[in-house]
Amino acid sequence: MKNSRRQFFKKAGTGLLALGVSSSVPSSKLYGLKTEIAAKNEDLFKFGIAGWTFVKFKLEPSLEMMARVDVHYLCIKNFHLPFDSTPEQIAEFHNMLKAKGVTGYAVGPISIKSEAEADQAFEYCKRVGVTMVVGVPEHELLPYIDKKVKEYDFHFAIHNHGYEDKLYPTPESIYSKVKDLDPRIGICHDIGYSMLMGIDPAEATIKYGNRIFDVHVKDVTSASAEGKDCELGRGIIDFAAFIKALRTVKYEGMCSLEFEKGDTDPLAGIAESVGYFRGVWNTV
Amino acid sequence: MKNSRRQFFKKAGTGLLALGVSSSVPSSKLYGLKTEIAAKNEDLFKFGIAGWTFVKFKLEPSLEMMARVDVHYLCIKNFHLPFDSTPEQIAEFHNMLKAKGVTGYAVGPISIKSEAEADQAFEYCKRVGVTMVVGVPEHELLPYIDKKVKEYDFHFAIHNHGYEDKLYPTPESIYSKVKDLDPRIGICHDIGYSMLMGIDPAEATIKYGNRIFDVHVKDVTSASAEGKDCELGRGIIDFAAFIKALRTVKYEGMCSLEFEKGDTDPLAGIAESVGYFRGVWNTV
Repeated sequence: MKNSRRQFFKKAGTGLLALGVSSSVPSSKLYGLKTEIAAKNEDLFKFGIAGWTFVKFKLEPSLEMMARVDVHYLCIKNFHLPFDSTPEQIAEFHNMLKAKGVTGYAVGPISIKSEAEADQAFEYCKRVGVTMVVGVPEHELLPYIDKKVKEYDFHFAIHNHGYEDKLYPTPESIYSKVKDLDPRIGICHDIGYSMLMGIDPAEATIKYGNRIFDVHVKDVTSASAEGKDCELGRGIIDFAAFIKALRTVKYEGMCSLEFEKGDTDPLAGIAESVGYFRGVWNTV
Repeated sequence: MKNSRRQFFKKAGTGLLALGVSSSVPSSKLYGLKTEIAAKNEDLFKFGIAGWTFVKFKLEPSLEMMARVDVHYLCIKNFHLPFDSTPEQIAEFHNMLKAKGVTGYAVGPISIKSEAEADQAFEYCKRVGVTMVVGVPEHELLPYIDKKVKEYDFHFAIHNHGYEDKLYPTPESIYSKVKDLDPRIGICHDIGYSMLMGIDPAEATIKYGNRIFDVHVKDVTSASAEGKDCELGRGIIDFAAFIKALRTVKYEGMCSLEFEKGDTDPLAGIAESVGYFRGVWNTV
């Protein structure tokens, strides 16, 4: 199973088709990235930010916040780059990111309720110039998604959204539906929603690591429906165990902070969370 | 030598004179504190903020920033509480701190250039209701400081200020001058200034731990006069080794962030630094 994940990264890095050859390449090549930020350690994964963190902000102040906390990878949300963007608008978007030292590594999460929306998501991803869609497709569309990843040679990562998500509440609910599909269909593991449901993020990482292509990093106050998002380190997630698990499965993707507590003034919480993750990461 | 440090904490906690009895008490009682914040671990030291961090801010926004990053101990600078404050102003100051869940644990750093200034510093400390002065006295005043700590039964911690400090550039320069004085005279170890001079903070902690009564926590970009202050984790200080050293010497004082990079907009840097310290602390 590990092979399929590694092929993805090999392929993404080299442009070759996944041919079943196990290979370990730097994670910066993971999503077909052209820009690489030097890593400060030997881990294969990198730290980024999920676009949803900036749902209340336009692109420029979002990038300004990323620069302040020295984070260089962004999962692109369509409120920053609409689906119908022209090539010129897409080029301008990438230029704005580049000016702040930021690289967009994937698009999404994108809700997909029809074949037409799937078509739109894959075309959008292609025009943006990345090779992974983070998405939430209706169950009956999974065979169609399977065809699309083959057609585009892209990866597709399904996001778990917890108690209120009837489609994909847990990583297990995703895994059970994708395990017999193309190995390029997998999981964007939201560790906050896992923890709220009592699923240990480290254990889930070990269990489904070969199918995890993206991670949304957050912390929560309790393992229950009443749990709230909080700054990393103030909640109950064991980040040392989680990072060890990422190393155990040789995870080569992004760990992207998705900070949802800050509302219209999120910078302090983002900064504290980024600092906490780095502190654990550099120590564990 | 360890005994003298422990006596301090025992004394500060119980109000008894230091009688040479070794004792380990929670660090919250360290500086004669009446308020105790529950610790999340078994370490004897706590995390606070040095008042200088807020040199560009009045008390209220400073406390607001402390609340944002969930830090509860403040070393009091006279720009927040002037030396000539009335009892009513001091009471109001403590009320403002209490409203934000903050406790002032010591006063300073205070520059002391005469016996009159020493008198003022000790009287100020007494009126503020804490039992430690962080100070920078002229060398020839040390015998007078020795008399004052005996008279007040307070502790006095001398701050190292690096290359440009002709009085106390290093912890060693302090230690050599105080080692034969009253054991209640010691060091406020600024680990940033140590690192700039090529002195490893962990090694200095092991070497002078029995005389270290306060710590100013920061990170710097290089071990040279050209090094700049930066967010914790972005510089060269090995915080895992430093925290291990604090444990080795059973340090029972404060580790107070002194963040000097932020200028008029320090909150993001403070938050990142607080997060980083906690991440290392919870992991090492």
